[in-house]
Amino acid sequence: MRTAVVLLSGGLDSATCLAIAQHEGFAPHALVIDYGQRHRHELVAAAALAAHARVPSTLVALDLRAIGGSALTSSVAVPKHESVSEIGSSVPVTYVPARNLTFLSIAVGLCEALGASDIFLGVNAVDYSGYPDCRPAFIESFASTAKLATKAGVEGRPFRIHTPLIALSKAQIILRGVAMGIDYARTHSCYDPVRRDGASEQREVLACGRCDSCLLRAKGFADAGVMDPTRYV
Amino acid sequence: MRTAVVLLSGGLDSATCLAIAQHEGFAPHALVIDYGQRHRHELVAAAALAAHARVPSTLVALDLRAIGGSALTSSVAVPKHESVSEIGSSVPVTYVPARNLTFLSIAVGLCEALGASDIFLGVNAVDYSGYPDCRPAFIESFASTAKLATKAGVEGRPFRIHTPLIALSKAQIILRGVAMGIDYARTHSCYDPVRRDGASEQREVLACGRCDSCLLRAKGFADAGVMDPTRYV
Repeated sequence: MRTAVVLLSGGLDSATCLAIAQHEGFAPHALVIDYGQRHRHELVAAAALAAHARVPSTLVALDLRAIGGSALTSSVAVPKHESVSEIGSSVPVTYVPARNLTFLSIAVGLCEALGASDIFLGVNAVDYSGYPDCRPAFIESFASTAKLATKAGVEGRPFRIHTPLIALSKAQIILRGVAMGIDYARTHSCYDPVRRDGASEQREVLACGRCDSCLLRAKGFADAGVMDPTRYV
Repeated sequence: MRTAVVLLSGGLDSATCLAIAQHEGFAPHALVIDYGQRHRHELVAAAALAAHARVPSTLVALDLRAIGGSALTSSVAVPKHESVSEIGSSVPVTYVPARNLTFLSIAVGLCEALGASDIFLGVNAVDYSGYPDCRPAFIESFASTAKLATKAGVEGRPFRIHTPLIALSKAQIILRGVAMGIDYARTHSCYDPVRRDGASEQREVLACGRCDSCLLRAKGFADAGVMDPTRYV
């Protein structure tokens, strides 16, 4: 079985991507990046998803708070809306400068260290919230650059960047995942979760329900006709 | 004055690059990356160089030890030689998987956060020690990819990657730097330095003199006819 590095954030898309990589016969190796994101609960979800799928994982710490420039890594407030229709078409303040470029670069490095050539990334150009680094043109260009950047590329082993979700709607992604048996209650998408304290075993992290990520996720479940397992505030 | 992000490792090449950026009229902003390198003394040198040049700096921590695959980030020994002629032509074990790809990606992110469009990188294709990510073809491809990856690129503000050293020999780099008044005693190039303990004010970090980086540096000073200020073991 060929090893594939799967970028696993702990969200719905990357969890589906992990299952697809397994389904396609790869031996996934999860790459989880702690980039100082304010929604740190996704790291807990990512670790749990990797453990449940019985795949090895590598956690890489990259402190993007030193750079800032995003509501996800600084004190800028995460925008809230009442419905998906209120989400603008411009790049939102939750855009993290050069995030997918940097994450894919780290994935390429991990591939080289593991002797792997395949990377799975759960980007999605349909319900994509306006991020430039989720578009097919970027992914194709990145693969060419990675070939030139690396020992593996120079030696004739280029990288294949798999983006199985890129042309799917959120509803289609969910239907695909449900068909593979994913329990989406294990995933976390909210950019601004609330921790409800209680006795330690009852402590829970609740989704805000009003950030772009929550709204797109909720609409995806509604459109798919699948019960939304997310626990909201 | 236009801001330029300068990748500053603390070595001879990046110190020269910083001076060139200033000389060309940019307001440099140093980007120093703590990637878990075993030669951590270069971080001290980088901070001192930025302070001496009176430029702001951002330190980003990225733990590439989690990935390994290089003598610079794992327990693999740094190769030692007696002279430059013994350095092979293949990619050496000191190659860090996808390092310049990742570092440039982080630099692009910092540029976006600062509203800058210029990046200086001290790569050098002549005395380049066999690293694929020091070649012009990679740099050009990266600039195209970065344009597609980012909000700035989408909005029509592409990035210019300046590599003023790329066609220079080490001796030419040194002569250029000396002409600009650089004190290369402030720089650190050795991959495997030795710390000589003593009273705290006398503690010093000495270069091994036999790793690829030391040998190329020493040959550069010899070829340039400039006294080598490096303190060797």
